Amino acid sequence: MPGFSFQLKKTDGGARLGEIFSAHGNVRTPAFMPVGTQAAVKAMRPDEVRALGTDIVLANTYHLMLRPGAERIAALGGLHRFMNWPYPILTDSGGFQVMSLAPLRKLDAEGVEFRSHLDGAMVTLTPERAMEIQDLLGSDIAMQLDECLKLPAERTDIERAMRLSLAWAERSKRAFEHVKDRALFGIVQGGTEPALRLESARALIDISFPGYAIGGLAVGEPQAAMLAVLDAVGPVLPEHCPRYLMGVGTPEDLLEAVSRGIDLFDCVLPTRNGRHGLAFTRFGTVNLKNARHADDPRPLDPESHCVAARAYSRAYLHHLVKANEILAAMLISAINLAYYQELMAGMRAAIAAARFADFRAEAAEGWARGDLSPLT
Amino acid sequence: MPGFSFQLKKTDGGARLGEIFSAHGNVRTPAFMPVGTQAAVKAMRPDEVRALGTDIVLANTYHLMLRPGAERIAALGGLHRFMNWPYPILTDSGGFQVMSLAPLRKLDAEGVEFRSHLDGAMVTLTPERAMEIQDLLGSDIAMQLDECLKLPAERTDIERAMRLSLAWAERSKRAFEHVKDRALFGIVQGGTEPALRLESARALIDISFPGYAIGGLAVGEPQAAMLAVLDAVGPVLPEHCPRYLMGVGTPEDLLEAVSRGIDLFDCVLPTRNGRHGLAFTRFGTVNLKNARHADDPRPLDPESHCVAARAYSRAYLHHLVKANEILAAMLISAINLAYYQELMAGMRAAIAAARFADFRAEAAEGWARGDLSPLT
Repeated sequence: MPGFSFQLKKTDGGARLGEIFSAHGNVRTPAFMPVGTQAAVKAMRPDEVRALGTDIVLANTYHLMLRPGAERIAALGGLHRFMNWPYPILTDSGGFQVMSLAPLRKLDAEGVEFRSHLDGAMVTLTPERAMEIQDLLGSDIAMQLDECLKLPAERTDIERAMRLSLAWAERSKRAFEHVKDRALFGIVQGGTEPALRLESARALIDISFPGYAIGGLAVGEPQAAMLAVLDAVGPVLPEHCPRYLMGVGTPEDLLEAVSRGIDLFDCVLPTRNGRHGLAFTRFGTVNLKNARHADDPRPLDPESHCVAARAYSRAYLHHLVKANEILAAMLISAINLAYYQELMAGMRAAIAAARFADFRAEAAEGWARGDLSPLT
Repeated sequence: MPGFSFQLKKTDGGARLGEIFSAHGNVRTPAFMPVGTQAAVKAMRPDEVRALGTDIVLANTYHLMLRPGAERIAALGGLHRFMNWPYPILTDSGGFQVMSLAPLRKLDAEGVEFRSHLDGAMVTLTPERAMEIQDLLGSDIAMQLDECLKLPAERTDIERAMRLSLAWAERSKRAFEHVKDRALFGIVQGGTEPALRLESARALIDISFPGYAIGGLAVGEPQAAMLAVLDAVGPVLPEHCPRYLMGVGTPEDLLEAVSRGIDLFDCVLPTRNGRHGLAFTRFGTVNLKNARHADDPRPLDPESHCVAARAYSRAYLHHLVKANEILAAMLISAINLAYYQELMAGMRAAIAAARFADFRAEAAEGWARGDLSPLT
């Protein structure tokens, strides 16, 4: 596959240091992908997303197929040009949002019919159409169509959805075969049942993909259940393929998942929390809405590489949140993404130096220390 | 006045090229001040505001006295540090917003009592308190407290408000006398009655201020009425003092007012319109909500000095506006402020080159040409 490859460079315990090579540039793994749902990372300019250490962003097929439309984006030169992000992009298949956002009309072996949450129009998504859309968008990594259940669910439902997702994996692969220089990842399903997860992973490996995602997690189950799935699936996944844990997670989730061999993550938490006044720092989360910050001249973290965390006082950030200023969302989203990317860079450096376990302990120590005491 | 002075460098017809020197840096005039109502220029980072050519911003005393409070900002090191803007700041007196936003309880010779629009608390603003607040904020240019009427109004009301504003001008000056290194400007009132405006201007000059504002305009009157006031007042204002036209205006207003000797402007239009999908360009306004942009790969203005006007397609900006992305407000506000500052820089260069009349004609020609034709 000329336009796409993955190199595993080093391991340290279960943690893996690697690099994805794609037509739009390289991705240092483990990597965190900010979410650009509607072809924009919320409240951030793409140059700023890049400057904070981002190699790759995720965009949502479901949203973009409905607005502005995949054919339109293709006519405008593809998603990279559209969103002014000339670096790697991963698109999901649309399946997850179809099931969480859209009123469903029908789901069967063929695909899914739903009403657009924007205008109520009836839309059909099949594995073939999901591949066509992602081809039109031109993302560097596309995802197979899968069925995502809400957990908890009955075992029989989980099993049925897992088998349907496998059938769709085959059809997705066939439909994507003509696409050059881009990768299609399969998605391991099976809820929190290790046996079903293993069956799904083995079947996907038989189909053969250049990368494997673990989907259907971080949907409300306890962290331990999620980690148990990683423990079950990790040993069977091919070493030379990147492993992507979809929709995860908190800083602690990232650390735990990297220690179990995950290479790629995406999550809305840094930007969504940024829009709601909640900051991530080396010392845990800080709720900037809290009145205790109103008179606090100290920055959020004077040692952050993000100027927003260094140059503005907590009092000012608190004021912006209370006053509902867009600048609050802009600055705190940047602070949060900076922290996430700092954490990923720290993990990569630690694996390279064969000290991942120490890094993990140090990070946990920082979170446990907690934020600065209020000024008295 | 060590911390504040104004140098008139050149005139070209009625237009004036000058420079304000202040403790926080210089202001090249004619100058446009973006509005930072709540200590933030909406949807823009301060470093970006600066980079687009801004020498000075305006902040609103009314909003800041209510939230987070002037005493709090003073305790945090003043407004410059609070909003991370180490350059010149002008604050208004609060009078205009009291009369437009707050339910009034009482207005008499002493001052004004009103309810906060935030929490209903009763607040009193007198000339003395308005000066104390602006001293606490630490702005480089403070404004006297005045009474702003909505136009049209009865001549007797206009006259009464003008005389009250003169009495408040005297009290403002007295209350501000101890403040070092900062300037207090008087405000000419008198509606659209040239005789009242002249009387107001002459009385303020007798009191003596380092700068004079023309207030109570751009409140719904025709542009011709506004310009007639400038024509009436201009000849009596001292040449060596900066002249500030409050709350104005459109690009055309700025050009007309500069040709009549105005040195300073503030207006919410570039940022407010930016948040509503309306862009200012050399070729007039462009409504990016309009469906005709949906498939247009062209940038808004490939020759703008603002990257947002060059690097993003109209189709993408249209998509962001329709999708209600914060990035739409960020990018279009930047595009608009860039155009405003480009226009001001163009005017300054034209005055320096004694070709202001030509520049004015060229700008009007661009606006008359209008935006690009839609793609067919």
